This record gives sequence, structure tokens and C-alpha cells, in this order.
Amino acid sequence: SEKESKSFSNRGMTLEDDINITNQFYLDTNKAVIHKKPTPVQIVNVNYPKRSAAVITEAYFKQASTTDYNGLYRGKYIDFEAKETKNKTLFPLANIHDHQISHMESIIGHGGVSFLIIRFAAYDETYFMETEKLFSFWNDKLKGGKKSISYEQVKQNSFLIPFQYQTRVDYLSIIDKLYF
Amino acid sequence: SEKESKSFSNRGMTLEDDINITNQFYLDTNKAVIHKKPTPVQIVNVNYPKRSAAVITEAYFKQASTTDYNGLYRGKYIDFEAKETKNKTLFPLANIHDHQISHMESIIGHGGVSFLIIRFAAYDETYFMETEKLFSFWNDKLKGGKKSISYEQVKQNSFLIPFQYQTRVDYLSIIDKLYF
Ligand SMILES: [Mg+2]
Ligand SMILES: [Mg+2]
Repeated sequence: SEKESKSFSNRGMTLEDDINITNQFYLDTNKAVIHKKPTPVQIVNVNYPKRSAAVITEAYFKQASTTDYNGLYRGKYIDFEAKETKNKTLFPLANIHDHQISHMESIIGHGGVSFLIIRFAAYDETYFMETEKLFSFWNDKLKGGKKSISYEQVKQNSFLIPFQYQTRVDYLSIIDKLYF
Repeated sequence: SEKESKSFSNRGMTLEDDINITNQFYLDTNKAVIHKKPTPVQIVNVNYPKRSAAVITEAYFKQASTTDYNGLYRGKYIDFEAKETKNKTLFPLANIHDHQISHMESIIGHGGVSFLIIRFAAYDETYFMETEKLFSFWNDKLKGGKKSISYEQVKQNSFLIPFQYQTRVDYLSIIDKLYF
């Protein structure tokens, strides 16, 4: 139904939209080639009507085993996950999955650039957290520590990503400072 | 119906399966982090039943704007497309889309490794063609030349990829020779 389609397309799209716009601008200006990976879907049933396009009639969302974005910038492999929270005081680590942490560890191990983008929607602030910082919070959690990163800790351990009209989440400006 | 599902899951999966097995082995042995991107799907309708998983009830296949595989190996960004043909004498260039060519050009321009894997199913031979070679055939086609690459031309302008039990399409062995 129309109602259901609408609720899907509006689900938490703000940060993702901003990053997609940014990536498109990077692509159009030949600055970088970074894309969002398609949503992983388990396709169960497809109809092939005569004289029209195949219709997927049954499919399910699959949990991503990697991160949402990857690509290439100044010869480097770029890989990141983006998460938005409405929480005003903390970022819940439950937003990140074990598989994603393993993937991020591999990226670092093979010489890629790995990071997490966190948006606090309440403040309209978007942060760039290096994966190594994320790991230290993650390992604390595994040892029985806190299951979240406080807003203050995010501020102290990340870089605020500048907002501009066409580069709404200009994360490459942070990468320029950190890696070049 | 069951028949329809089966016809989908069997559709030209052989080369893809072999590459997926190879990539899994590369991942398990910590050699590289290379994944197939999920199939791009335009989701139109989703049902959210109580007490069970969301069901996508209407969706369509979208044409990929990039290539099927990307990842990271020895610090380099790796990006490729894989195509299988049943044709015994030629590889039709219609298998490659304009968008993919533009994407490959960007990858080269930004210092990534870009190539095409071509399997001739009739001979069970799988070739590694550098993107620069593909471009020369593509540009010939744009100038009114042939719309295909003959089997002999593929052989002359590519590297035969070795087959092994766990690395069924061992394309990294070619990258080792070309780039390191
Ligand atoms: Mg995600
Ligand atoms: Mg493809």
C-alpha cells in the first residue's frame, strides 16, 4: 500500500541523503569515487511477466556483513559506516554489529582508511571518528564496560565534519588532514 | 512459485559463485578484503507484519551504475566486473554498460586497480583483461568498429587466470605480477 511504501522511504534517511549528495558532488567534481552499497536483500521469489520488467514479489532485508560506503580517494581505499542517533547524551554501541567491527579491523590491516560517521540529530552535529577510537570503546564494552559512547566522549575523540551546501558531510576534508 | 525462484537462483551463477568462493578464501586467509556488491534493487512496497520480519512485496532490479566487485588488497583499491559468455568465438561488448565504462575510467584516474574478468564457458577459460585494453576495444566500437572482442583478441590481450580448488578464479595472482 502507499502508506507502507512511504514509511519505508522516509525511515532515517537524513544523514544518508546528505552523504549521498556529498558523494555525488565528489563524483561530479572528479574528487573521489565513493558510493553507498546497495541494501542487501535476500530475493525469494521473482515473477517474469511477458512484455514487462521482472517483479520481485518476495524478499527480505539481510544484515550487512560489511559497512555502508566504500570507494577510492587519492589512491586510498576508503570505507566507512554512517549512523544517526536521536539520543542527546550518548551513541549506543548496539548500532554497530560484530561483523562490521571485524570488517573494519581487516580494512585497517590491509592499509585502507576506515572510520565511522556519527550524527547527533538533536544538535545537527556530524562527527568523524577514526576506527581505532571506536575499537577502544568497543573493547571496553566487551570487557563489561559501558554499552555506549557518551556525547562528550564522541566530541573529545572525533572531528566535527564541516557542513557546506554541496558537501553537506565533507568527510574528505578530515581525511586530507589525517592522511596527507 | 518454486519454478520461478529456481530459475532466478540458477541464472548465470557459475562465474559469480567461483569468484565468491575465491573472495571468501582470500578473506579467511587474510589475504584481501573484496566483496560482491549486493544486487541493486528498487524497493516499492514493504509489509511489516507483527511479530515477524519485514517482507518486501514489490521490488525491481536496477541497472548497476558501477561494477560488481570492489575491495582492498595490499593497500590498493581493487575494482572489477565479471562476465561470462556462452559464445565460443567472441565476447559481445553489449555486456558492458556506458556507466560502467565511466566508472572504470574514474577508478584508473584516482589510482585504483580496474579490470574485467571474462569467462568463456564453452572452454572453461577465465581471463583477466586490464581496463586499458577494454577501453581500446570500447573506443573502436564507438568509432563504428566491431561490437565485440573476438576470442582470439581476448586471448592475446588478457591473462589466463589460474584455477585452484579454493581459489577458483585466482585473479590476485595476476595483480601480484602486474602491480607489485
Ligand atoms: Mg548500515
Ligand atoms: Mg554486473
